[in-house]
Amino acid sequence: MITTVFFDLDDTLYDTTRLASLARRAAVHSMISKGLPLELEEGCSKLMKIIREKGSNFSNHFDILAEEVLGRKDFKIVSAGIIGYHNSKFANIMPYDDTISTLIALKRMGLSLNIISNGRAVKQWEKVLRLGLEAFFDNVVISEEVGAEKPERRIYEIAMERAHCNPDDALFVDNDIDCIIGANEVGMRTVLMNRSRKESRTDVSDFHIKALSELPALIEKL
Amino acid sequence: MITTVFFDLDDTLYDTTRLASLARRAAVHSMISKGLPLELEEGCSKLMKIIREKGSNFSNHFDILAEEVLGRKDFKIVSAGIIGYHNSKFANIMPYDDTISTLIALKRMGLSLNIISNGRAVKQWEKVLRLGLEAFFDNVVISEEVGAEKPERRIYEIAMERAHCNPDDALFVDNDIDCIIGANEVGMRTVLMNRSRKESRTDVSDFHIKALSELPALIEKL
Repeated sequence: MITTVFFDLDDTLYDTTRLASLARRAAVHSMISKGLPLELEEGCSKLMKIIREKGSNFSNHFDILAEEVLGRKDFKIVSAGIIGYHNSKFANIMPYDDTISTLIALKRMGLSLNIISNGRAVKQWEKVLRLGLEAFFDNVVISEEVGAEKPERRIYEIAMERAHCNPDDALFVDNDIDCIIGANEVGMRTVLMNRSRKESRTDVSDFHIKALSELPALIEKL
Repeated sequence: MITTVFFDLDDTLYDTTRLASLARRAAVHSMISKGLPLELEEGCSKLMKIIREKGSNFSNHFDILAEEVLGRKDFKIVSAGIIGYHNSKFANIMPYDDTISTLIALKRMGLSLNIISNGRAVKQWEKVLRLGLEAFFDNVVISEEVGAEKPERRIYEIAMERAHCNPDDALFVDNDIDCIIGANEVGMRTVLMNRSRKESRTDVSDFHIKALSELPALIEKL
């Protein structure tokens, strides 16, 4: 019987992809408004190119964009980008429409709810707190804190230890195929969430859903 | 004749000291609300003690506070502190009551207005932009960008070059005695601003004022 559910955070409980895309657009808009001579669409595609080249965790995307366009450093314009980016993120971070109602339904079923997330501990906690989700979760396990990241065995094992459960009692929900495979390997049952219209693989997880709202009925049947 | 005025930023055009104090209080409040077992006043004095010991530019004050009180790392509580701190800063940053009206009056007198500030370029620009002040200033000279900081001669000289003025045409306004002395040494006329009720030295600057609103009349007389 399932007693314990483990959720991924980014793109599982809220729409990181949309949030980042809105924030980047807001950043470019703000940079243009302070003098970067570009059209919005052009600026957004230049920025995306820089992000693809440098990786999304690199912290100087705006510096490079300003320097590429102006041929010199411009701290005012970089600063405008950062302000636009952060204002947008703080204003727009929110759970998926069905996240809260699903979590409430699962709590009513008496389940223990937990998060297993890859990332920097303070950053991931900031998201949990800004999303207003922390009261739903018994444990939040973040890779930086435990020194192992999905799909490494150790992070799933630590999460199960903290939740006092066995793989037989555990269900793991994630949108990422590699992380699902890691959870399979420690013996958890797995649910791949795929909100996109594109088909994704159905052979790696025990179950697959299009939205979190399908979870309560799925768990009832187990 | 004075044609060009150079202003310090922090604690000259807006109240940094008050802003930081509000933000630290908001941070402690937020950490307590997420489980740090302290009274607000006690938490604020513990935090101030850490800031005095580590310096205000150290970035892990909240980590140390949480660890001191709990005897272990707690990323949730650190993250709550950071959220409280930033929310408070963004919500409360504003110019002094008389900053905008004074800047308008000086612009109407045909003066060139400029900033000379010590700090990180992007951080200082963020303040200028969030304060809504950038349109008043012809040049914003920040120590990190020019590789020299007040009271070194070089930063005043660079600022005067950029503003195309001589020391005879320049007036420098700051709340910091050392920075005033530096400006004296390059031949600028100087105004020490002291908003506090405490007396400060009156022997280092050419003029001293209690509020920015005294500036237009003072410059008229020169």
